[in-house]
Amino acid sequence: MSFLEKLRAVARRNNSWLCIGLDSEFPRLPSFLRERHGPSAVLEFNRAIIEATADLVCAYKPNLAFYEMLGPLGLEILYKTRELIPQEIPIIADAKRGDIENTARAYAKALFEYYRFDAVTVNPLMGFDSVAPFLEYSEKCTFLLVRTSNPGARDFQELNCDGKPLYQHVAEKARQWNTRKNIGVVVGATAPNELAIVRRIVGDEMPILVPGIGAQAGDLERAVKNSVNAHKELAIINVSRSVIFASSSEDFAHAARHAALSLRDEINRARA
Amino acid sequence: MSFLEKLRAVARRNNSWLCIGLDSEFPRLPSFLRERHGPSAVLEFNRAIIEATADLVCAYKPNLAFYEMLGPLGLEILYKTRELIPQEIPIIADAKRGDIENTARAYAKALFEYYRFDAVTVNPLMGFDSVAPFLEYSEKCTFLLVRTSNPGARDFQELNCDGKPLYQHVAEKARQWNTRKNIGVVVGATAPNELAIVRRIVGDEMPILVPGIGAQAGDLERAVKNSVNAHKELAIINVSRSVIFASSSEDFAHAARHAALSLRDEINRARA
Repeated sequence: MSFLEKLRAVARRNNSWLCIGLDSEFPRLPSFLRERHGPSAVLEFNRAIIEATADLVCAYKPNLAFYEMLGPLGLEILYKTRELIPQEIPIIADAKRGDIENTARAYAKALFEYYRFDAVTVNPLMGFDSVAPFLEYSEKCTFLLVRTSNPGARDFQELNCDGKPLYQHVAEKARQWNTRKNIGVVVGATAPNELAIVRRIVGDEMPILVPGIGAQAGDLERAVKNSVNAHKELAIINVSRSVIFASSSEDFAHAARHAALSLRDEINRARA
Repeated sequence: MSFLEKLRAVARRNNSWLCIGLDSEFPRLPSFLRERHGPSAVLEFNRAIIEATADLVCAYKPNLAFYEMLGPLGLEILYKTRELIPQEIPIIADAKRGDIENTARAYAKALFEYYRFDAVTVNPLMGFDSVAPFLEYSEKCTFLLVRTSNPGARDFQELNCDGKPLYQHVAEKARQWNTRKNIGVVVGATAPNELAIVRRIVGDEMPILVPGIGAQAGDLERAVKNSVNAHKELAIINVSRSVIFASSSEDFAHAARHAALSLRDEINRARA
């Protein structure tokens, strides 16, 4: 089953295009969990968040930085987190890797074979041969950074290159390189106009991963309207901190469920 | 002691601007080591390479991909490799990370605090706030990808943006953001003309990390001449596969030493 089939199946079943970012940064976890479990609190936190939200999402997206900061133990927790997520829900590893061909191959092996993630984010700056090893996994999906959600996105991604901004060149390459139908793109909710432009460039069959809602303050309604395809789908709206850290007390999982439910419904209203 | 002081001290003592890339990909290790040790062969391999070459280098550069592909165990091996390298030799973690500010902060914590690397490579596509958390570590060095050594470098890095190629914009930002004197740049040996242009842009006090010699077939003499500063220094010439995999038999460490010695001398002749 390809990533797109898996994504559509769970989006339909859960009636949701919400993706929850498992950016479970140890120092931000509820103190009672940290005191009880030490670094393993990250796993217990993820377990509770996943149990409370698995019927409300179309995907989960752990960002590897928050696991790597704990050293090898963090990577073990990441591996175990992967096993806590019901098999039918796709997992997008937010890794933003990108390197020369033989090295990209090693990263792809790590993320797709060792950790068995369904999808990965890749930084396209190094060009085709840095992306190609990921694309060889035809059942997986590779999301290229096109226009990111942060303030610094303006430094390079919006430079005018041969008559159009750099991010549009990347979006065009994403479409051109998509011979196996396994590429997606990342465009931040903080750039709603660019979202609409990228959707036009990549067409209706490519998923757009949209971070930047919540802590980064992107406008949810405009982001959804501008990123969905003609069938009002394939926009994966990611929210991390404002869901998983909705509360820092004993009721944190309940609070995360409440936040996720409200976001899922808001996304669906914007799609309608 | 800052990265630059540490780098200059060991370069002087070893009379060397050669950096050895510890891209110790498990399937490429000598078969007798793999059979004897399993995945831990990576550590034994690194130990032998480091012992055979520590008096010939100015730095070591492990690429994280080749450790991550082994899962959490690979990261343990990376940690232990770090401890095998004599303290006076700087270690550049080739990680090519880059993410929004709070995430970049977690990556910086992982690489500079957990693993205690001296320097790191960072992908600048996401702009200033994705780089800034690394720069806060003033004794460390952050190498920004400016013009990479691979064929795909042409896809985006050479696009003409507002009158000059993208890579020159990145080199200019590297100079501009270098208020703490702890930025370096990466330019591939396969792009010798671009190396000369970048050296002019960044000035004489910024180190240039130069991959692409050896397996990637860059011209060593031109690369060295075009990347050194006015004092014929601060060009870190990295060679990975053609040194560490010089032989796959029992004499592999001896063969690596032989290859390193010859490269070190060739670099010095080109500097003269």
